[in-house]
Amino acid sequence: MKLYDLPPSPNARRVRIFIAEKGLEIPIVPVNMMTGENQSEGYLAKNSLGKMPLLELDDGTCIAESAAICRYLEEMNPNPPLMGRNPLERALVEMWHRRMEFEFLIPVITIFLHTGEMWKDRVTQIPQVAETGILNVKERMEWLDRELDGKEFITGEDYTVADITAQCAFVMAKAALGLRIAEDQPKLSNWFTRVSSRPTARA
Amino acid sequence: MKLYDLPPSPNARRVRIFIAEKGLEIPIVPVNMMTGENQSEGYLAKNSLGKMPLLELDDGTCIAESAAICRYLEEMNPNPPLMGRNPLERALVEMWHRRMEFEFLIPVITIFLHTGEMWKDRVTQIPQVAETGILNVKERMEWLDRELDGKEFITGEDYTVADITAQCAFVMAKAALGLRIAEDQPKLSNWFTRVSSRPTARA
Repeated sequence: MKLYDLPPSPNARRVRIFIAEKGLEIPIVPVNMMTGENQSEGYLAKNSLGKMPLLELDDGTCIAESAAICRYLEEMNPNPPLMGRNPLERALVEMWHRRMEFEFLIPVITIFLHTGEMWKDRVTQIPQVAETGILNVKERMEWLDRELDGKEFITGEDYTVADITAQCAFVMAKAALGLRIAEDQPKLSNWFTRVSSRPTARA
Repeated sequence: MKLYDLPPSPNARRVRIFIAEKGLEIPIVPVNMMTGENQSEGYLAKNSLGKMPLLELDDGTCIAESAAICRYLEEMNPNPPLMGRNPLERALVEMWHRRMEFEFLIPVITIFLHTGEMWKDRVTQIPQVAETGILNVKERMEWLDRELDGKEFITGEDYTVADITAQCAFVMAKAALGLRIAEDQPKLSNWFTRVSSRPTARA
C-alpha cells in the first residue's frame, strides 16, 4: 500500500492526519504538481483526473478522493473509530464531515485558487469569487462558533474525521488567506487550540 | 421517520431516487424555500443551515446532507446495495460518488445559482463563474464518456448512488442550463438513457 501525496494540499493533509490518528505507517510518494508529474501518463493511469491524494493497494487498485481513502482505512482499521461506531453515528459524522467540507474546506481552497499567485496562469481567477467567498466563510465561522456550544469536538464528544477536515480548512484559511478565527468566537477558538495541539496535527 | 423535501432540488431528488430504489416508503414534508419556510425558527431547530433534504427520525434526531441520509438508509436497509458490498467496493463507490458530485452536480448547481432568474436577488451572481463552469463541465463530460468504456454503470456492473447523483446532475444540466450530452459521446449518452429509463428515475 502507498499514498501518493501532494505535501502542501489540505486534502492530502487530512488523509495524513487520519493515517497518523490510526497509528498506521503507509509509505508516501510525493507527486510534484508544479512540474506536471500528476499529468504524466503513468500517474493518469492511476487517477485519470490527475489529483492527489491517491491510495494504491498492493494489487494496484487505486482509491482517489480523500473521504473515500479515509473510509477504506477506517473499515480496515476500525480503532480508534474516526467515522462513528454505529449506523446513526456514522450518518451524523458524515453529515458534519460534509458540512466542514462544503462550508469551509472547499470555499477556502476556492478562494485560494482565485487569489493565489501560483494559480494565476493555471485557472481563470475571478476576484469577486474570492470577495464573496471570504464573506461567506466569515459568516459560517460565526455559525460554527454557535454550533460548538457545549461540544468538545465538531460532532460532540469524540474527535472524528469532521474535526480533521475542519482543522485543515482553518490552517489553510490562516496560512494562505490570512483569515483567522475572530476574538469573539471563543468556542471555535478553543476547539481549534484543542485539535491543533494533538500530536498528529502536523502530519 | 420523515423526509423534509425541496421538490425541484437535485439534492432532494437524489435522496428520493435512493429511497425508491430501496423500495422504502418514507412520508415526505415539502418545505417552501421561496416563502422562507426553511429559515423559520422551527426548521432551523432541525437544520441550522436551513437546507433540504433532511431526514427526521422518530426520536427527533435529524440527519442533514444527502449523502449522509443515503448512508443511514443503506446501513438500515442493505438490500439492494447501492453503496457497495464490502470495504473496497464501498471505497470505490464513494470515490465515484464524489467525482460525480464534484465534477458534475456541484458545478451544475453553481452555474445555475449564477445564472438563474430565481437566484438574482438571493446571491451575488457572477457571469464569468457560469462561463468557465460550463467549459469545465463540458470537458468533464468528455472525460466521463471515456471512463464509461466497457462499463454498464458509473462504478462498473452495478447501479449505485454514484449513478443516482450523476443522473440528477445531467437532468438539471439539460433542464436548467440547456447543457446536453454531445452527439459524439455515445457511451455517456447510452448510460444516461439506461439510468433514465429506470422506474425510479422520476421519483
